[in-house]
Amino acid sequence: AILAALPLEAPTTPALSNDQRLVGKHVLVTAGPTHEPIDPVRVIANKSSGKQGFAIAAAAVKAGARVTLVAGPVSLATPAGVNRIDVQTANEMADAVAGALPADIAIMVAAVADWRVAPSDVKLKKDAGAPDLQFERNPDILATLGEHPERPGLLIGFAAETNDVVANATSKLERKKADWILANDVSGDVMGGDRNRIHLVTADGVEDWDEASKADVASHLIDKIAESIS
Amino acid sequence: AILAALPLEAPTTPALSNDQRLVGKHVLVTAGPTHEPIDPVRVIANKSSGKQGFAIAAAAVKAGARVTLVAGPVSLATPAGVNRIDVQTANEMADAVAGALPADIAIMVAAVADWRVAPSDVKLKKDAGAPDLQFERNPDILATLGEHPERPGLLIGFAAETNDVVANATSKLERKKADWILANDVSGDVMGGDRNRIHLVTADGVEDWDEASKADVASHLIDKIAESIS
Repeated sequence: AILAALPLEAPTTPALSNDQRLVGKHVLVTAGPTHEPIDPVRVIANKSSGKQGFAIAAAAVKAGARVTLVAGPVSLATPAGVNRIDVQTANEMADAVAGALPADIAIMVAAVADWRVAPSDVKLKKDAGAPDLQFERNPDILATLGEHPERPGLLIGFAAETNDVVANATSKLERKKADWILANDVSGDVMGGDRNRIHLVTADGVEDWDEASKADVASHLIDKIAESIS
Repeated sequence: AILAALPLEAPTTPALSNDQRLVGKHVLVTAGPTHEPIDPVRVIANKSSGKQGFAIAAAAVKAGARVTLVAGPVSLATPAGVNRIDVQTANEMADAVAGALPADIAIMVAAVADWRVAPSDVKLKKDAGAPDLQFERNPDILATLGEHPERPGLLIGFAAETNDVVANATSKLERKKADWILANDVSGDVMGGDRNRIHLVTADGVEDWDEASKADVASHLIDKIAESIS
């Protein structure tokens, strides 16, 4: 069902601006949380609103790219000109990402659950006692792309951290074989909020960006991408 | 902070219609899910959209009631004339409900988490292994109201079930000392959807309502309430 939503041919991106910097490029973006079911009504979720990823998808379209946006459950309108694929779980997101390859640039913004549980078919009853959740590791989408035969030429991950932000992001860059990690401190109200403060971690070092709106972060990231591939 | 949001005096409800059936009544409604934190970014949540509870709050205002709506994290606009109190967790919802008493009619629509976990102050790292969640029982808001010194004169609960819908609801009516339980089968896409099929369980028996929009369910429930208190 997910694959059926993928266009067989590249759709015509509407000419939203004269910005041609990413014309001819396929940009693959993930956004939002994943929901891992516990039973038919309960899920393990996270506070990601999808705003940063949607803003990046919109900015990539504006720069002329063909954009595929794989979105977890969020309450956001699809930016004009974006091909959106909705998913719930990390497994579904991994499948949708793999199905959207090849891509020139992949920007993995979604806050993907590290763990899923084997869900119950019926609603768990309170009187049955505390849930006994058996966790199973979810696929690591960024690391999978890092080692994929069709690895995107520019592979960018996000690291939402609450402590040791840059150190954790630097470690993530190496482990996931990503090119860039955009790290942010989510101990405040970044998740769900409208502003973000980014540390761009690359093999060359760390660049601290000023706090900005998520739209401005998106626009700045697309500037960096356009520079890097030109 | 939650209590500060409560008005000290009953606000003037805007005259949205000529319907006077609930004038002078305070209607307390809960809606949406609760989010129980696992760490600063992860939560245990459920699929409740809040639509049914918000529709009931709107219908109660339309019938002339003063309405307090205690809402979990949802993406819905506040119906005109409703006093809304936003909460995240079951404990916060329980406190907000207690703080909103006395109420003539309480309609507990929220899908409250039965369990919370002792949250981590820092984001759990995947490499630390599967989360070891220690579950603690959440307060039972409906049962607490059922035995409260300021028990609302008409106490209505919801039962979202995936199996044995009416039997589970009948048991819930007795255990929680509620007057009515509105039971629905959520094994389909009721949660988050726009339609609902209700079984009204009371001491007198079970009334099966036709499937209807959530707005029509709300309006029908307010009709029933107005009849019952007149």
